Formats: sequence, structure tokens, C-alpha cells
Amino acid sequence: MDLNQIGAQAKTAAAAMNRLGVNEKNRGLRAVMESIRTGTEQILEANRLDVDRAKTNGMSPAMLDRLTLTPARVEGMLDGLNQIVSLDDPVGEVISMKQRPNGLLIGKKRVPLGVIGIIYEARPNVTADAFGLCFKTGNAVILKGGSDAIESNKAIVDQIRKGLKTAGLPEDAVQLVTDTDRKTTLELMRLNAYVDVLIPRGSAGLIRTVVQNSTVPVIETGSGNCHIYVDESADFTMALDIIDNAKTQRIGVCNACESLVVHSAVAARFLPLLEERLGQKHVEIRGDERARAVVPSFVEATQQDWGTEYLDYIISVKTVDSLDEAIAHINRYNTGHSEAIITNNYDHAQRFLAEIDAAAVYVNASTRFTDGNEFGFGAEIGISTQKLHARGPMGLEALTTTKYIIYGNGQVRP
Amino acid sequence: MDLNQIGAQAKTAAAAMNRLGVNEKNRGLRAVMESIRTGTEQILEANRLDVDRAKTNGMSPAMLDRLTLTPARVEGMLDGLNQIVSLDDPVGEVISMKQRPNGLLIGKKRVPLGVIGIIYEARPNVTADAFGLCFKTGNAVILKGGSDAIESNKAIVDQIRKGLKTAGLPEDAVQLVTDTDRKTTLELMRLNAYVDVLIPRGSAGLIRTVVQNSTVPVIETGSGNCHIYVDESADFTMALDIIDNAKTQRIGVCNACESLVVHSAVAARFLPLLEERLGQKHVEIRGDERARAVVPSFVEATQQDWGTEYLDYIISVKTVDSLDEAIAHINRYNTGHSEAIITNNYDHAQRFLAEIDAAAVYVNASTRFTDGNEFGFGAEIGISTQKLHARGPMGLEALTTTKYIIYGNGQVRP
Repeated sequence: MDLNQIGAQAKTAAAAMNRLGVNEKNRGLRAVMESIRTGTEQILEANRLDVDRAKTNGMSPAMLDRLTLTPARVEGMLDGLNQIVSLDDPVGEVISMKQRPNGLLIGKKRVPLGVIGIIYEARPNVTADAFGLCFKTGNAVILKGGSDAIESNKAIVDQIRKGLKTAGLPEDAVQLVTDTDRKTTLELMRLNAYVDVLIPRGSAGLIRTVVQNSTVPVIETGSGNCHIYVDESADFTMALDIIDNAKTQRIGVCNACESLVVHSAVAARFLPLLEERLGQKHVEIRGDERARAVVPSFVEATQQDWGTEYLDYIISVKTVDSLDEAIAHINRYNTGHSEAIITNNYDHAQRFLAEIDAAAVYVNASTRFTDGNEFGFGAEIGISTQKLHARGPMGLEALTTTKYIIYGNGQVRP
Repeated sequence: MDLNQIGAQAKTAAAAMNRLGVNEKNRGLRAVMESIRTGTEQILEANRLDVDRAKTNGMSPAMLDRLTLTPARVEGMLDGLNQIVSLDDPVGEVISMKQRPNGLLIGKKRVPLGVIGIIYEARPNVTADAFGLCFKTGNAVILKGGSDAIESNKAIVDQIRKGLKTAGLPEDAVQLVTDTDRKTTLELMRLNAYVDVLIPRGSAGLIRTVVQNSTVPVIETGSGNCHIYVDESADFTMALDIIDNAKTQRIGVCNACESLVVHSAVAARFLPLLEERLGQKHVEIRGDERARAVVPSFVEATQQDWGTEYLDYIISVKTVDSLDEAIAHINRYNTGHSEAIITNNYDHAQRFLAEIDAAAVYVNASTRFTDGNEFGFGAEIGISTQKLHARGPMGLEALTTTKYIIYGNGQVRP
């Protein structure tokens, strides 16, 4: 497999896509939907090969579930693509244009990134989703999925390319790297001549590998060790509702709450209520010494708990004596994702918003809202926990860059 | 030298700086200016040690000139800091705030990046400049200069820290890595726990090393293989003025023009005029076969010329038969910096602006305008030739990121 050829083809496709208006791109997405719909049986058949092999290899039931496609899940892919059709295209917007004293008219225009590489794991529905978001924003995408889903991914990409061909649009807008060995993946991470950005989607381990090995710029989507701080002025009912929601509404997601920070002035009254509320959901509570002095049945928290993203029915509790201490603790252990304060104190709310270093900082709301759809972006390619380019939920705009366009009439620099 | 300690100190300083308003930051910059002014003699003395050692080591005159400080150059540093004082602070701006259907008020606020690492080479004036830009935007900076300028950099950083101390502001807003060996530099490039972004400033080799070895996100400032395309409808006088300016106004800079692309329909009339005009400045012209058929005295251009950034009195000339061919050639060989078309054809102007893939695309103006001051940013930390985060001249805003601030009143996710 020649990655340089794949890269060159992607670059050619990207140049062609840069010339497409949104009507053309939507026509392409609809053609792809039609092709996936008529090819559903081929996709499911290919998926059965992956699932059978995975079963033979003893894949865990949770992983098997992620890998498995059903007619309803293919329908879900189509719904996703249809939603992307309905979104506004950010490409082409001129964000600002100003005339300089010398008469130059300098504008900043939103344009596609070019060629996007996406490295992901077992879930084959990412294939259609990632293609759709990249295509809508005029980018060519090189997909590198996991070996477990290789047959499914091949079948889905075949249908996408068939749809594009039918529509008379560049098939190389999407290409799948079918060699799933480590060497090829490393090569893709260093394909700077052709790939403008890499987005890893999957486990913390996958993301770490990409960050450590890429010379192509990476948008890091990351894990969430999210905190909720219960201030001394917190409304207890609100605090319990929000904590219950942020911890238990969905367990295995990056915006779930993993750790509570509780002001010592309310610990004696609040922690028994917490135990009662989370006990109903069988959440294990791991407390520091002061928390356990209030509720002796709490499990003893170790230093390691403060830095752990459980993704499970477990939560840690740290007791603090001040807002300053709460902010310092959270800024030390958080992963830059989502953090919340429950308070009725105006100054504490404003200071928490200003001083916590994270992609999304909440007052009196659940951390579970950090999500492209909940933020009103309509779709999401991931949640960035880094600070460059995009931070927080990434919608279509995160898949664009800008260029300066300058209208002159003979200006030279004195 | 313990880089982890430097990193931790920078992070602590960044947290303190995040709480400073612009008045406080300007007060700090003025105190630093005062300290540099009174410490000028110490700085010049330290610089003499660097210059003497460099002379002994046989440094080239051009490099020696960059390394040498004079009272006027120290005054220049102070002017630079003073200009930074006068700029608007982008930090704290809430770019957008919208209410969601569930009542959540979601805002996007501009905040400091945090800790910025700057890796640079021989010019000690970068030290004060980089500090000033980072400080104004509330970032702590870790500076890693070249070994040639180590004494100068130490003396400048000493004065900056003295000024900050006098003003009661965190000295660790600036720290110098005084170990200049390769191992320490590599360690800095992998200090992800503390450093939010690295900006290399200097030669193509330095930038390549940083891009190849960093796991910390990098903002790549890069070289410029800038083209000017002379369309068949070009005004020849305007074309000659712009080419002369873009090639010869300043030779060794990244926004200088290195290559011309000329439409074949005007080559026979235009190229003799070009030879005459650039001949006055002793510019060597390297042409392809068709250009040399018009002006036999042109040096023969090889394939290698199309990809070469001369930074010298040399320019290449490629002949094309169409706008499409011009765009394809430029998109193949450019470095994503600045490209210009000289034309009176409306459609060609618009297509060139739309289809050329570069940070700055010009119609009828010199590429030399790609510069923070010329674009009206007041200052510049570099010119990004990559597509993530910042593209083109980077002013203060490029040294910020955003975070979402969310005001709720008890919302939980259904």
C-alpha cells in the first residue's frame, strides 16, 4: 500500500472539492446516503465477517457490541449523514475584511483544512460519520480504522465512493488505509507532505500513541476527569440532581463526573444526603479522611483516585476549606475537559469561571452538556481537550482554517 | 537544570497572570522597560562576552551582526515593548454568547494559552520581544535561546525578572533555559505536562527539528517560496513594480518573491522588460526553456529551482499556457506563505484567490505585505505557514485560546 499515492490522490480530491459549493456537496452526501441504503446488505455481510472473527478471537461483549452493525445502526448512519446535509457550511465565510491605510483590502476567509487523517478504533459507524463531516467542509479524508472492523470499513467506504462516483464527484474524497499494521499507521502520522491534520478518535492509549508519534499536527480529543465543586452556598437539591445526572446518566463518557470537591462547611450536612442519593444508583463513593469522618462507609480514597477517570459507578470526594483550595485541586487533577461549581455566591461563580483551566466551565449545570449537539453545533467530530485550534466540542468550523485574501491595485511596500 | 521545576513554576505564574487585568499587565511591561533601561550597560557587557566568543569561533559576519547588541538596539527592544503596551489585550473578550433552548447561557471567552515555549537562535532581541507578547496576553513563557547568545539572554531575562519583581508581579512569567544542549531542548519539546504550545523561531532547520521531535503542540512558522503570477491581462508597469519590490526591497525575508509564473501569451513582450528591470538590481533570472527562448541570457532553470527559497538576488521564471496551469504549479511548489497574481481579469483574480492554497493570497500587490504590522496587528510573534490554530501573520490573538463558560440554573441532561 503506497501511502504517498493515497496522499497525492487526497490532495487532488481536496483541490477539486475546494471548488464545490454547498449545493454540490449536499448532492454528494445524498448520493452517498442512497448508495449506503442500497448497499446495506453488503455492509452487514462484511460486518458479520468482522464479528465472527472477533468472537473467535474472544473479544469482550462490550467491544463486540460496538463492532456489530444492524439494519437499525446502518439507518443511524444515514440519519447522521442526513443531519450533516441540513447543517450550514462554514466554508467561504469572510470573517472580517478591512481596508488598510494604503488601500489594501485585507479579508480573512474560512476555507477547508485540505486533507484530514482520522485514526480510530473498533466502531465502524465512525467511518460514515467522519466522512460526512469532512466532506461537508470540503476536506478530503484518509481513514485508518482498526483491524477488527476492517471488512466493515471496506464495505462502507466502497458504498461511499460508489455514491460519489454516481454523483460525478471525486471518489478520493474518502480513502481507507487497508493495511492496519503499526508500520503503516506510523507512516500516516508522518505524511506531512499530504496530510494537514490528524484527528485520533478512540481510547486514551490510541490518542497518546498519535500525539507521541505524529509529526503531522494533531487535534487531541481526550479523556475527561471532570469535577463538580459543591460550594458552601450550594443549593443541596440542585447539587444532588446535578451530581446524580453527571455521574449516572451515562457512565462511560468523557463528560461524566468523576470527582466531587466539597466545602468543609457543608460536608457534615451534604455528604449523608449524597450517600443516600448515589446509593440508590449503587455508586461507590471514595472519600478523603474528612469525608469519611462524616460518612464512615465511604471507601478510603488514595492519592491515585484524584487523577482517575473511572468511567464506572465510582466517584471520589475531596474536602476543601476554601474556593481557592477547590480551584487549585481541580486545576491540578483535571484533564482540561468540563468542570462545574454549584453555588449561589456570585463572586465564587465568576471566579470559578475565570480561574478554572478547562474547555468548558459550568455554574449550576451538569458537565454532561459538553457535546456538539447540546452546544447547538448540530454535529461533532470530537471534544478537544487541548488549547490549539479548537477547544471543547468541535463542530464543522473546527474542520476549517482561514486564509487571508488581499485585494490591491498595485501596492508595493515602501 | 530541572525542566519539570521550570515547567511547574511557569504554570503557577500563568495561573497568577490569568487573574491580571490589562492595566496590571501594562504596569508590568513598563516596569520591565525601566529595568532594561537602567540595566543597559550590564546587557551590553554580557553581549560583548557572546560576541567575543563568537569571533573566536569564527562566526560569519552576517550572524555576528544579528548577535551584536548596541545602545540603539537596546532602545529598539524598549520601543518594541512600548508598542506592546499600546496594543489592545485580546484576553477576556467573549466572542459569542447564546442561550440554548434549555436556558443554558453558553459563551466562548478568549483566554491565555497558559505556558508558551519559544525556541530560537542567535538574535537576543527576540528575548524581550517574545516575553512582551506572551506577557501582554497573560501567558508565562519559557525561553530557550541559542548557545551563541546565552550571556546576552541571561542578562536580558535578569532585567525582565527584576522589573517584574519590582512591580510585585510573578517573576516566573519568564524563565530562561540556560542549558543549551540538545538533550535539554528535546526534553523541553516533550514537556507536555506543563507546556501548552511551542513556537520555534529561526532557520528552516530549527523549525524542522522542533516539528519532528515535539510532542507538545507546535505552531510552525515557516519559510516562504512565494510566487507572483503574471497573467495575460496584467498591466506590465504594475507587474514590474510589484516584482521589483517583492524580490529586491528586502532579500532575506520569508515574504520575498522567489519565483515568477508568466503566461505564454505575454512572455515575448514581458520577459525582456523583466530582464531590463531586474538587471538594474543585478538579479539573476533562471528561466525554463520557453523563457530562455525569449531571453537567451536567462540562466537555465532546473527542476530544483521551482522548490528553492533563494533569499538572494535570484528569481526563477516558469512559463504556463493557462491560469489552471499557473495555479497547479504554484500549489505544487509553494510553502503555504504568500502568493500573488497580477491581472486585470476579474474572473482570474477571483479564481486565484479561491484556489491558491496559502496563508495570504494577493491580487495586484506585493507579497512583502504579509507581516503583522502591515496587516494592522501592531506586533507579530511570527508568520504561520501551517493551517491549525493560526495561519499567516500572528498577532496577540494567536497567543490566546478560548474556553466555554456556561451559566446554568440547575440544568441536567435528559
